[in-house]
Amino acid sequence: MALVRLPTITHHETRFELRIGLLTGGGDCPGLNAAIRAVVKQGMGEYGHTIIGFRNGWKGVVDGDIIPLGRQDIRNVLPVGGTLLGTARFHPHASDGGIDAVLATVEAERLDAMICIGGDGTLHAASKVADAGVNIVAIPKTIDNDVEGTDLSIGFHTAVNIATEAIDRVHTTAESHNRVMVVEVMGRHAGWIAVNAGIAGGAEVVLAPEDPFDMDAIEKFLRHRHRAHANFSIVVVAEGAVPREGSSMNFTQELGKYGEIIAGSIGERVSAEIAKRTGFDTRLTVLGHVQRGGEPTPTDRILGSRFGVAAVDAVSRGESKVMTALRGESVVLVPLDEIAGKVKHVPAELLRVAHALS
Amino acid sequence: MALVRLPTITHHETRFELRIGLLTGGGDCPGLNAAIRAVVKQGMGEYGHTIIGFRNGWKGVVDGDIIPLGRQDIRNVLPVGGTLLGTARFHPHASDGGIDAVLATVEAERLDAMICIGGDGTLHAASKVADAGVNIVAIPKTIDNDVEGTDLSIGFHTAVNIATEAIDRVHTTAESHNRVMVVEVMGRHAGWIAVNAGIAGGAEVVLAPEDPFDMDAIEKFLRHRHRAHANFSIVVVAEGAVPREGSSMNFTQELGKYGEIIAGSIGERVSAEIAKRTGFDTRLTVLGHVQRGGEPTPTDRILGSRFGVAAVDAVSRGESKVMTALRGESVVLVPLDEIAGKVKHVPAELLRVAHALS
Amino acid sequence: MALVRLPTITHHETRFELRIGLLTGGGDCPGLNAAIRAVVKQGMGEYGHTIIGFRNGWKGVVDGDIIPLGRQDIRNVLPVGGTLLGTARFHPHASDGGIDAVLATVEAERLDAMICIGGDGTLHAASKVADAGVNIVAIPKTIDNDVEGTDLSIGFHTAVNIATEAIDRVHTTAESHNRVMVVEVMGRHAGWIAVNAGIAGGAEVVLAPEDPFDMDAIEKFLRHRHRAHANFSIVVVAEGAVPREGSSMNFTQELGKYGEIIAGSIGERVSAEIAKRTGFDTRLTVLGHVQRGGEPTPTDRILGSRFGVAAVDAVSRGESKVMTALRGESVVLVPLDEIAGKVKHVPAELLRVAHALS
Amino acid sequence: MALVRLPTITHHETRFELRIGLLTGGGDCPGLNAAIRAVVKQGMGEYGHTIIGFRNGWKGVVDGDIIPLGRQDIRNVLPVGGTLLGTARFHPHASDGGIDAVLATVEAERLDAMICIGGDGTLHAASKVADAGVNIVAIPKTIDNDVEGTDLSIGFHTAVNIATEAIDRVHTTAESHNRVMVVEVMGRHAGWIAVNAGIAGGAEVVLAPEDPFDMDAIEKFLRHRHRAHANFSIVVVAEGAVPREGSSMNFTQELGKYGEIIAGSIGERVSAEIAKRTGFDTRLTVLGHVQRGGEPTPTDRILGSRFGVAAVDAVSRGESKVMTALRGESVVLVPLDEIAGKVKHVPAELLRVAHALS
Repeated sequence: MALVRLPTITHHETRFELRIGLLTGGGDCPGLNAAIRAVVKQGMGEYGHTIIGFRNGWKGVVDGDIIPLGRQDIRNVLPVGGTLLGTARFHPHASDGGIDAVLATVEAERLDAMICIGGDGTLHAASKVADAGVNIVAIPKTIDNDVEGTDLSIGFHTAVNIATEAIDRVHTTAESHNRVMVVEVMGRHAGWIAVNAGIAGGAEVVLAPEDPFDMDAIEKFLRHRHRAHANFSIVVVAEGAVPREGSSMNFTQELGKYGEIIAGSIGERVSAEIAKRTGFDTRLTVLGHVQRGGEPTPTDRILGSRFGVAAVDAVSRGESKVMTALRGESVVLVPLDEIAGKVKHVPAELLRVAHALS
Repeated sequence: MALVRLPTITHHETRFELRIGLLTGGGDCPGLNAAIRAVVKQGMGEYGHTIIGFRNGWKGVVDGDIIPLGRQDIRNVLPVGGTLLGTARFHPHASDGGIDAVLATVEAERLDAMICIGGDGTLHAASKVADAGVNIVAIPKTIDNDVEGTDLSIGFHTAVNIATEAIDRVHTTAESHNRVMVVEVMGRHAGWIAVNAGIAGGAEVVLAPEDPFDMDAIEKFLRHRHRAHANFSIVVVAEGAVPREGSSMNFTQELGKYGEIIAGSIGERVSAEIAKRTGFDTRLTVLGHVQRGGEPTPTDRILGSRFGVAAVDAVSRGESKVMTALRGESVVLVPLDEIAGKVKHVPAELLRVAHALS
Repeated sequence: MALVRLPTITHHETRFELRIGLLTGGGDCPGLNAAIRAVVKQGMGEYGHTIIGFRNGWKGVVDGDIIPLGRQDIRNVLPVGGTLLGTARFHPHASDGGIDAVLATVEAERLDAMICIGGDGTLHAASKVADAGVNIVAIPKTIDNDVEGTDLSIGFHTAVNIATEAIDRVHTTAESHNRVMVVEVMGRHAGWIAVNAGIAGGAEVVLAPEDPFDMDAIEKFLRHRHRAHANFSIVVVAEGAVPREGSSMNFTQELGKYGEIIAGSIGERVSAEIAKRTGFDTRLTVLGHVQRGGEPTPTDRILGSRFGVAAVDAVSRGESKVMTALRGESVVLVPLDEIAGKVKHVPAELLRVAHALS
Repeated sequence: MALVRLPTITHHETRFELRIGLLTGGGDCPGLNAAIRAVVKQGMGEYGHTIIGFRNGWKGVVDGDIIPLGRQDIRNVLPVGGTLLGTARFHPHASDGGIDAVLATVEAERLDAMICIGGDGTLHAASKVADAGVNIVAIPKTIDNDVEGTDLSIGFHTAVNIATEAIDRVHTTAESHNRVMVVEVMGRHAGWIAVNAGIAGGAEVVLAPEDPFDMDAIEKFLRHRHRAHANFSIVVVAEGAVPREGSSMNFTQELGKYGEIIAGSIGERVSAEIAKRTGFDTRLTVLGHVQRGGEPTPTDRILGSRFGVAAVDAVSRGESKVMTALRGESVVLVPLDEIAGKVKHVPAELLRVAHALS
């Protein structure tokens, strides 16, 4: 994959003022405000740009719904979760005349470029808008961490911390009551939260979409463990975990309009199945919304800050249709075309550690 | 209520060695280990007593299932949630020959006294065992904080902290997505967690068993609020909250064998009702088991420590059928008879603060 | 002590609008914003009062330096430490014409009453201002918790949490390196933080002003402990701890203009003395400013909220020269005259627990 | 740099049992126990190896001071800071006959290989011991994060979190009291903690060894800021920060036997200088030991776990004189020769973000 490295800019030879539109799209998560703050501070302070915020993601661009963004508006937002711009799951390319409405707003507001912060849907929309002729730089966020091309997306790190804390908490109850505690965490297409929080929380079983599970093997493992040297177990389940094909466990789920699971979550099924097969006292905890809210970890604040600065630098250099990305210790730019339609999966080494330490 | 104040003992004139049984019963919670540690340290260090631990609450007493408790066993347990003794929801007085089995173990182990740490059920059992002739001192624990006669029971303070953190977290999502977030917390008979975490988290609506709610009024309040000056709301619901009689909302719940709610929790009902009536995007988070696990707050560590020391002092003085209790800044003893069958409710002043600040 | 119990007010028969001045004085601490928010919400929402904020404590009253306080100004401040009003260590009664300047501002702003949030100095000033004819209700705050007449003052609970977390942290280093770790915490006249955090953190030695220490006994205890069953120790020292008279350790400190210790803190002395006498590897950590900042615990948010509501209720009923106070589970009012010049000390029972569990 | 990528091992063709020595050296930090636990679990569970622990780092190897390491010994240590093996700052190559004593122990204990977890000194010792013929794999830990060749070393991430929390806390005091708060953090040779915590905490000024500072420029910046739009500032100083040559500020420090600063820390100097030059109320907080203790973050637990598994895999394959390292999302091995004597500095991009957002 070709990478465009950010040069280390210390002195700017040219200084030109742009009008830059800024939005946050998709589900909210901690660290978005750090990125917004960095875009405003770097844009105004380093380049003299004007930053125009749109309310509620692409919806606000389509509707021309603007929030003024000056130094005063970003005071004290660094440790605050959510997004001061508001957000919505709305995709201009999926609605009639959506892209045209975006272009109309870009013209009306005389925008030279846009910076959009979001996940899959928002990045896809960014591609389409770029194709329609708008200079655009994207910043990836998703607590699922499944955006291709970057080690980390905004929000993931905080989600892992919250999930780990929850596992730590149910751990003491599991041990005190001789129970199997099943904890369902987010992760529709990839098991990043489950695997990381599972390792950090010392879970005995971790179920991730990358590695379809075998209910018979789990039953056998739990029976052996409880017979041999422990009277409790923690099972962490990503919401997108699936039983191995031909497995002795079958199930179906009821999905809502955004693809969210309405009934019969995998956590419920796994929990019921373990209770039925082993007879162990088994309880389920579904973490839900707490995973995506509240104070961002320092890592998410730093990531948002770096991505915000890099995005402003990129639009100032005329880059477009690229995404900021973390690679090891560096922030780089990645062409949106190279990541489109891809899901970043948990690597085998990490899955192996989760299993080895169970 | 007659209170027996603890004298400040600095020098012991007499030194006699007792054999003291110790157990933790009912649901586990943070702070139990602090109490266990204090009983062992104070019992061994100050008086030269021998402490005999029973595994899994009254069940272990009935079965004669013993854990040795020396200085080594309580190392580093102060900040650890749960109970190193294990616990179970088992009541000797509710099972045939249970009390006799307890007396047999007391005799077999030559126990001079017992200290039992638990909630309603355990305290009731303690009363029955005391009536059968065993010297017994109880220490109250319940995350619901509804034990009469004491300002605080072990575990409650940590539960409020966890619930508040969860409300803080969903707050940012509520605000970013213009949602109503319903958070269901524990509290079957009293709304202590809901009211305290609701105030601390700045919830707009707090529903507690003490104050049956009016769905029409809630609908009206939320509509007014969202029209007037905000686009989101937090609703905290104690699991034991109930609609006002004659209310336009009716519901039934399916209960399990321990009285736990299996389906149709009040949180689900309230959430569905708000969504149906207002059309606002409404989401439910049920905190569940995380409320009773993990690292105890300093307050619960201190409370457990003080209660443990006071309980040892009490049995050493020959007290029996009393419970350690916090009253303002003092630890006192309360006769078990005075608290039997009572539920401590949230006072009107606190309910009023919850409503006033919404 | 005569207590004026707050009646439970549910319906107000009379509704009259007051102009109420509000200030925060003395050192800042977590929970002040909760109290400010409660005064504004309860004052405006329940009674229709107007709240006039003064910047930087009594200094702002003397200077007529006003901050407008409406619903918008208190949004999202509940979990934020410090005070949005600013604060200063300035006492009108200690400066020439100070009280007259206060009266002039009260008249210029047509204030019907004042609510002032502060510690010793601010409470004393409130008394003087009340004597000069101004209706005034005080809310106690001090991380030292040494204000007489109330179980808790705003800020103390958060300070104990921070100090406990620090003790937890140095604990692992002490154990890994076989060290004596000395932790100096705040507490000039009373050892509330030291004793509570010492118990919660499992400190081996706790030194508080209430109980002058004997360096010989400490040396003996540490030597015995390290020889017998441990290779590390935690010593928590309140900044106001003093050696017993006739003790073999003497020391002097250099004090600054606010009485703050500039050089030769007791922590340094104790640390040096232990190292010299025992030869153990001994290290000092002085917690300092982190103890009084940052996010308030739920307990401090609730306390601030209750005190704020109670203070508004009190001024609305015409009460004056009283302080809101927590007594057990109740919020009450205490005459300022009854607490003047007193320091609330750690009770013997709590000191005893700290020593018993070491 | 040549990297030896870890193959993904799923089935082991050969199974052979090794005797592996394990030690932790240098300063303790959070995450060491995660690595120890992983070495034991992976070594015993996957390969059937025997793990022999040495007490207090290389000192224990020289003295033949052994700790038995079985499954029981690593229970519940994952979230616990410090090292259950103990540690010491002792280097066998720096003491007479040290390496010979190591070899003698290796022979006496019939060790096939060693795994050592440590920073600079320990890695250097590992090289020397490897040169003497012992198979050895190293795992890097240092809260300073300045070990070359790896994105992260164990302990750094937790230190950044602690430092950020401290900055968050002094922030509210700075703002409430109109103060300059100077926070001194660890970082002798590189400013990783200062720069990361400075960005995460929103510090106005960050001083790192990589970028000698200009006191005149800082004075000018602070004066401008306090005149223009704020009345407080946070200054984060790495303990190894130095003034620019020819700067108008000169200072010397008194160093102890391990190179630690005994008196006249840079934080004190910078704090005094700012107070003198600007007249602003300026206060210093030196974080000290709390930065290296207590519960590891999930990131440090995961890093320790991955490094532990990778180290066991490496010695099982016969690798020697290599170090486990994180590169982006992968764990790899790096020859010890390639990192010897190098210090990893904060990259220009990160320094720039710290300055841009001030």
